[in-house]
Amino acid sequence: MDAMEAILTRRSTRSMRREKPPMELIRQVVEAGRAAPSGGNSQTTHLIVITREEILETLREKVASAFAGMEADESTYPSLRKSILRSKEGTYIYDYYAPVLIVTANRREYGNAMADSACVLENMMIAANALDLGACWINQLHWLDGDRNVRDCLEKLGLEKHETVTGGLILGYPLDGKPLRTPLPRTGNPVTWI
Amino acid sequence: MDAMEAILTRRSTRSMRREKPPMELIRQVVEAGRAAPSGGNSQTTHLIVITREEILETLREKVASAFAGMEADESTYPSLRKSILRSKEGTYIYDYYAPVLIVTANRREYGNAMADSACVLENMMIAANALDLGACWINQLHWLDGDRNVRDCLEKLGLEKHETVTGGLILGYPLDGKPLRTPLPRTGNPVTWI
Repeated sequence: MDAMEAILTRRSTRSMRREKPPMELIRQVVEAGRAAPSGGNSQTTHLIVITREEILETLREKVASAFAGMEADESTYPSLRKSILRSKEGTYIYDYYAPVLIVTANRREYGNAMADSACVLENMMIAANALDLGACWINQLHWLDGDRNVRDCLEKLGLEKHETVTGGLILGYPLDGKPLRTPLPRTGNPVTWI
Repeated sequence: MDAMEAILTRRSTRSMRREKPPMELIRQVVEAGRAAPSGGNSQTTHLIVITREEILETLREKVASAFAGMEADESTYPSLRKSILRSKEGTYIYDYYAPVLIVTANRREYGNAMADSACVLENMMIAANALDLGACWINQLHWLDGDRNVRDCLEKLGLEKHETVTGGLILGYPLDGKPLRTPLPRTGNPVTWI
């Protein structure tokens, strides 16, 4: 797919088949992520690629359990509030049962940790679209970076103690076969021309 | 250009011609940036696109002046240290005399400010590569977000008081005609497969 088309038609995909895409496709998405630029060429984003269903299920339970123990009110960031309220109801599936989860982490003390990891994640979202896969940034593991149970689980999977979880990506085949490719209108992201 | 090729061959370009690319190309890069995803679809990244040489020169002077007034020691982040030391020597040109500077800003209180803006910047870097332009993330205006003189200048250009500068991009024709497209080896950005 043409690069501009891949960028301009990318749309966050949450409804996915539970069937895992071939490892070769997942690898291409991961390599696109690794190609992102980094501050001072530090290349310190750590990608944890999880495709084992029993691990994904364990994470789902720990995430919902962590949110269920939190409180939300009118001042809570809307997506976080939804996560907390649905977890308390017992109906929260933070990863939409996607077959692939890619967690990104970076050095806690590094000033460009979030910036660098976001570039990695954006590359993977564009690559997924170009490869007819669906993808969506998943921020819950970042929000729960300080939660002991979630961190314990991620540290067993390879997260280093000095790393902070910067974000995550779900990846898989869109439920309808191909990505939707009708992006939401860009009414925001304003531009000032000087 | 193919999307995967544009991602995998992107390399930060700092040496550029001073000739400004046509506005139509700049607009395509900006629209690629605006197409990035955002937390809760907030679309709050503000892009300030500066192509007027006298404004770019004013910013160059204010940036160098701000850094010249700062102190650096062995514990200072290496790129920031270089900016400070070269500014004290009077030899610092933070934007490599690029003909186009795109400043990104976002709401100061918004938790995904840096993440969202980084996705905007990464989209623009890939688009630039696909369009045979060179680009490089420029972080100095982010570092100087708290500097009164630099902020005053940016606020006159449209930066809102409630916005924080998240990053920036220089854009132009590479000195050698086309982008280098030989990315630095990815020895970092490690992957753990689960």
